[in-house]
Formats: sequence, C-alpha cells, structure tokens
Amino acid sequence: MNFPQIDETHDPARSSWVERADGHSDFPVQNLPYGIFSPQGGAPRAGVAIGTMIFDLRAAAEAGLLPAPAAAVLDGTVLNPLMALPSADRVALRRRLSELFSDARWRGAVEPLLHRAADCVPHLPAAIGDYTDFYVGIHHATNIGKLFRPDNPLLPNYKYVPIGYHGRASSIRPSGVPVLRPQGQRKAPDADMPEVGPSQRLDYELELGIWIGAGNALGEPVPIGRAAEHIAGFCLLNDWSARDFQAWEYVPLGPFLAKNFQTTISPWIVTAEAMAPFRIAQPGRPEGDPRPLPYLWDEGDQAKGALAIDLEVHLSSARMRAEGLEPLRLSRGPASSMYWTAQQIVAHHASNGCNLNPGDLLGTGTLSAPKRDGYGSLMELTEGGKRRISLPTGEERAFLEDGDELALKAVARADGYVPIGFGECRAVIQPARFLHGIRADN
Amino acid sequence: MNFPQIDETHDPARSSWVERADGHSDFPVQNLPYGIFSPQGGAPRAGVAIGTMIFDLRAAAEAGLLPAPAAAVLDGTVLNPLMALPSADRVALRRRLSELFSDARWRGAVEPLLHRAADCVPHLPAAIGDYTDFYVGIHHATNIGKLFRPDNPLLPNYKYVPIGYHGRASSIRPSGVPVLRPQGQRKAPDADMPEVGPSQRLDYELELGIWIGAGNALGEPVPIGRAAEHIAGFCLLNDWSARDFQAWEYVPLGPFLAKNFQTTISPWIVTAEAMAPFRIAQPGRPEGDPRPLPYLWDEGDQAKGALAIDLEVHLSSARMRAEGLEPLRLSRGPASSMYWTAQQIVAHHASNGCNLNPGDLLGTGTLSAPKRDGYGSLMELTEGGKRRISLPTGEERAFLEDGDELALKAVARADGYVPIGFGECRAVIQPARFLHGIRADN
Repeated sequence: MNFPQIDETHDPARSSWVERADGHSDFPVQNLPYGIFSPQGGAPRAGVAIGTMIFDLRAAAEAGLLPAPAAAVLDGTVLNPLMALPSADRVALRRRLSELFSDARWRGAVEPLLHRAADCVPHLPAAIGDYTDFYVGIHHATNIGKLFRPDNPLLPNYKYVPIGYHGRASSIRPSGVPVLRPQGQRKAPDADMPEVGPSQRLDYELELGIWIGAGNALGEPVPIGRAAEHIAGFCLLNDWSARDFQAWEYVPLGPFLAKNFQTTISPWIVTAEAMAPFRIAQPGRPEGDPRPLPYLWDEGDQAKGALAIDLEVHLSSARMRAEGLEPLRLSRGPASSMYWTAQQIVAHHASNGCNLNPGDLLGTGTLSAPKRDGYGSLMELTEGGKRRISLPTGEERAFLEDGDELALKAVARADGYVPIGFGECRAVIQPARFLHGIRADN
Repeated sequence: MNFPQIDETHDPARSSWVERADGHSDFPVQNLPYGIFSPQGGAPRAGVAIGTMIFDLRAAAEAGLLPAPAAAVLDGTVLNPLMALPSADRVALRRRLSELFSDARWRGAVEPLLHRAADCVPHLPAAIGDYTDFYVGIHHATNIGKLFRPDNPLLPNYKYVPIGYHGRASSIRPSGVPVLRPQGQRKAPDADMPEVGPSQRLDYELELGIWIGAGNALGEPVPIGRAAEHIAGFCLLNDWSARDFQAWEYVPLGPFLAKNFQTTISPWIVTAEAMAPFRIAQPGRPEGDPRPLPYLWDEGDQAKGALAIDLEVHLSSARMRAEGLEPLRLSRGPASSMYWTAQQIVAHHASNGCNLNPGDLLGTGTLSAPKRDGYGSLMELTEGGKRRISLPTGEERAFLEDGDELALKAVARADGYVPIGFGECRAVIQPARFLHGIRADN
C-alpha cells in the first residue's frame, strides 16, 4: 500500500513565522490544507489555511512562488485539477509551502498574499461530481440496528460488504451555511395515513469525508493495494438526517429526502500527505469476525490503514449562545471505530468498474465509539428520542431545535508529532420556511 | 399546470425537405430533439436530430440562423445552458428550427450544416450533476415485491411516496457504449459466506429518463402546479442491474454496486415542447387507492400529466446477429403504467428543499405493463430466472449473456399527430475483464 511518506514537512521542530501556525491552531505548518475562499470583497480562489490566515495560492502561483505543475492548476475556482495531480506533484507543492511558511527569508514575498481567515468566506473546495455515503461505523450500525432488531442488530452482509449508497451532491454546503428544517412525509405507527410537515426528529451524523484524488476509468477496478493512491484527503461531514421522514420512506431503496436536503462539510481538504504520521493499525475487526474477501484485503492496509483522529460533537442552543455559555460536548470518540478503512471503501466502490473522479466525495457513515459518550448522532444518544439530553440552561433535547448550532471537530494526534485539526464544520438550524411549496412564514 | 402548448410545430401537415424527416423516422420535423454529437473527424458540439441527419446547432448559431438567446448558449459541449433557458426561449428555438427544416427557402443555408447521423458519434447531452432513480412503475414494484412477499407485494409507503434513491452520475453512458459485465459479491442462500465473481444474473430495466430544465434553489420546494416548468425533456434509460449483487448488498441502504457500473441512455433530449400532443390523463391510480397528499396533487396534472408513449425491449444474441436474424421483442407496454407522473416525481424530489439543477437526470424506474408481454426486466419475465426465454436460434435466456445486445425503443403516439421516436438506447454485453482489480483475460 503506497501511503504518503513522513518527510520534513511533518517535523515537529519546524515552526512558522505565521501567527499561531502551531499546534494551538487547527492549521499548524505541519497541516497545510487546501480550500477555496473569497477574501473580503474578492472572488473565489484557491488557498491554504495556515494559523489564523489563508494564503492566496492563485496569487502565489502568479508570483512564481510555487512549483510547476501544481502552479498551473491553481487558477480556477475548484480544486479538482489539483486533486487529480500525481502524488509527486502534490508532495512538491506541500514541501514548497512548508518552506515558504517556515523560512523567514520568504516572509517578505509571502506575507502580502496572506488574508485573515476571519475576514474570508469559505466555499466548497471542489465540484463534487458524485457523493457516496457509507456505513462503516460498526457501533453506529449496531446501535441503529438494535432499535429495529434488538436480538440481531447487524445484518448478515455487514462484515463482508462495506455498505454504501449514493447521496446528493447538489446540496452539499460548506461549514457556516444555515440548515433550513426540511419538510416531508412521516407516518406515526398508529396513524392510518402519513402527514406532511416540518421534521420533528431532525438529527446530525458525525462522519469523516474522503476526497477522491486520481480517478479510475469506467470498467477498471482499483486494486486494494493501490487504493491509497486515489485518496487526496479528508474532511468532516455532517449527514443531517430527518429521522421521521427516514423511517417512512427508506424501504426498499434506502434513505432519500430524509438526508438530501443538506450535507455540511468542513471546507478544508486535509491532505493524505498531512495525515502520514497519523496512520495506525486497523483495529476495527475483532477476533472471530470473517476475514475480508481478497479484493478488500491488504496487509499494509491492515497495518497502517486506519487514522488516529479524535472526533467531537458540540451543541449550543440559541439561549446558550445568548447567555454566553460554552457549547456542550455531546460526544467524543476515535475515527478508528471504522470497521472498513478508507482504502477498503475505495476498492469496494470501484470493484464493479464504477468510475471515481477527482473531487468525488465519500462519507464514512456515522462514527460512533462503543460507549454512549462517543455516540455520533442524537438517534443513538437519546435512544430514538426517549432519553433526553439536558443543556446547561435547563433546556432539554431529544432532537435538534430551531436555533441550535451543531459543530463537529476533529484533531489527528500521534506521539511526537504536532496535532492537526480539520477546521470548522458547523451550522445553525433555521425554522422551516415552506409548506407544500408555499412560504410558511407568509 | 403549465404544460407546453401545441403549436404550428406539431402540425401533421408540416413536412420537411430533409430526407426521411417524417413519421417513418424517429425524428420527423415535429420532434426536433437536442443532443451533443461529433461529426466525422470533428469535435463534440450541439445538434438537433432531423430524419437521418444531424443539424449542427453551433454552426447554425454562428451563421446567424438561430434566435437569441438560444443562439448564445449553443457554443459548448453540453446542453445544460440550453436546458436552463426559460420556456419561451426554448419555444422560439423550436419554432425557428421547424421553419428552417420545413420551408424550402432555407434549404440552401441549412443543408451545408447537416451531417449524416450514421457518420456521427453521439455523446451525453448534458453534464449530469445528479442522477436520481425512482420506482414509479407499479406493476414492476408489484412483480418484484411478489418475489419477496407473495401475499403483500407493495410496501405501505408505495401509494403515498414516489419512492426514489440517488444513483451514480459518473457511469451514465450514451447508447452504443458496450457494457462490461461487472464483478462483485453475491451469496447463495445456502452458502456460508459470499463469493466474488462476474455477475451471473445480469439484467436490464426499461425506464424513461426525465431531464431537469430550470432548477430550484436549495431550500425552495417546487410546487406541484409548477413542476412541469422544470422538465426540459425525456429520454430512454436502461438501468442495468446485477441481480445477484443486488440481493446481497441492498439491505439496509438500497442498491449500490448492483446498478452503478453503467447506465445507458438514448442521447437525444426529446423536449417537453415536442411531447405536447401526447399528454393524456393519468390512469395509474385505481379506484380505492388513497388520494395523494396535497403537495403531490394537481387537477391539471391528473388531467394531462401522463404520456402516451409506447415502449419496447428487443434482444439479439451474438448468434442471432451472425445468422442475420431480427432482434426478438421481449416486451411492449405503455409509459402510462407510471403510478406517479413526472411532475409528481419532480415536486416530491424538491419537497424537502433539495435543489435540482439544469441537466440533472431522473429515472422513472422500470415501466412494466400489467401482463407478462409488457414486463420491463428479465427478473420479471423469467420470474427470477426460473422461466427461461427461447430465442429464434434455439438458445435460451434466464439473464443476459455475453454478446447479447439489448435495445429499448419508445414512440409517442396520438391520433391526428405524427408519431415521435426517441432514438437508440442499446448496448452489447462484453465479458468481465477484471477480477479483484487484475485483468481476467491476461
């Protein structure tokens, strides 16, 4: 398995002349994630997050500061061409950026191209051709399965098939874009027929996103041993879910309107190269579980294919924010609760010849830890709404209320390396506005 | 409901000076479907099919033959901008084309811009942002349901929810591109564990495709009364399906690798304007069925929302073609077997605020007629493979074999109007080539 190597860009002794570009920020000089941003009053362009700043990659390319061929693909408003570059070119860009930010001799040339991140607007980093959501969080699958089948929560295919399904690409939005409470059909178990209205069981799902780099041609599977070469990076992903709609609509073809009204991602692509020090053995497959079929099995993947990332979910109600209270942490857990690695996900997706393209996005599915304090959705935390959560204001939550802000966080950690954050993945819930196509607030 | 009007472009007395641009071809002057094609030795460009020819719309726009603003959006290699135009602009283009092809005074200017279709390569007509497949063929849903639940084939949500799920946009290909037999996981009912191999139950599904024209913003549903304004046109769609993979993978999140290896469409967008004379009352909802919820109910839609299209499926084996035999017609049936109209599909899809974009593609799901001679898949025709079909060569088929060519056909018919065809939607099955990412034919 060709994972990116640890090189001098990961050196914990390397410091930056850019303010807060250290382990106290999500974006130390060891991270260098790519995104698309608009500076104040400016048009969207490529950038890299560094400390509290964003470096204008397009301007840097125009100024001759960046190596070809990366410099040649940074003039657009999406990063798909950068993601499609061979690994060597992406590594060369990363090394160059690390040098620019750590060597004070470059400060004069680089500093004019830095924008305060707080003044910028983040955009989606890529034109997402296809978005696929998986279900590899085994504790989540078990928890949800228990709600339907207490004695037999995992279906027979779960330990053989990285279960996934296609999601909606058009409604993916970057962190910060509010989420309108969706309307839809639901049917109470004792009701004769369904009704339509704003979701009463609006939930979040804590996921990682996997960005596809190099694609594969239609009809040509990606061997498991080469799957890592197709992964450009990672982000946080919130798969907002209307549980009442989901329960009514999902048989036999899966979730649809319960999930496609919006998906929120963190806007920075934390690169596969940046994650090199945080690769760990895949711990997700307990003794006694079946060995994966050969097309999903690779020793190198098992040894280094998982990621040492801590994940957290924070909630603040409108009242909490008005009273100046800190958000409440709802859960914390490791990304290693993935039963299948990112590489197994990619190899499975392409195993039938399905073509993946640069800038495609794959969600892992909800990543819940084994115990309650690590559950990645309210459906699990509140046992389907039965066990309400108390907020510091005395408010309670079974599901999300209007005005709630939900934030996902992720930090990759490994002994001897500077921790790397993923940036913001948050959104506020706004009241439902339309009913049957007519504005409800008229 | 604002359906396009019948105007002089539908006049059956209108004839064309272009060869075979009459009811004996799929593309009479009353049709005028749009597509993207490459002439011999040329680059992809916009065109309109007329008789046995394709008219170069880009060249026509450059020559000043076409009205603005349509002329301004015909210079690219996809038709999304044309599909996004307001109806009035699309109608103006259609009227102009009808005039150019029917009035012999234009022959001198137009004829040099015609290419023989037989010499051209068809492409996808649009960049398909998202592809969604529905399940509105009630006889298909009943037939498939019977295989699993003989006493209760339709699930409780079926008559309330236009069931749909997201499909794969990247693997949609135009008619003529061969289909490689996919490989994947399947598990025999009596087997201890799954195995991997080429699909042994490869099937087709006869569907119509619905092309989205004008989009809707995220968070803004499309009222049922305006849904027709968002439909640019229609095509044929073959949702190739590996039934063995599907049975093993589809719970709980729906079909995935069983269907996303390839989807074949007819390359011409038969416009909503062209379909104006073929609108009929929606016959799909028998007495006693529940009335749709208000957001799906429109009197005008019920009166005129269905389409009078005859659908056919034809199969030829490699041996049949070698022996010069005609393809065998497997089925014939009406598109009016849709339980939900195209307008209901659009209104439902956007009811939660999900944003549809110009060039998005929606599949209807398999359109089977009530009786066996109208079943739209082998799964139904052969009862899951048990009842084999005899070919004129003496060969038999339970599912598709390598070398088989499968062709879908559609013709819209109405008394007093020239019938309109949809063009070719066919592909040949090629043997599986890769196993576990390694070429099987090495």
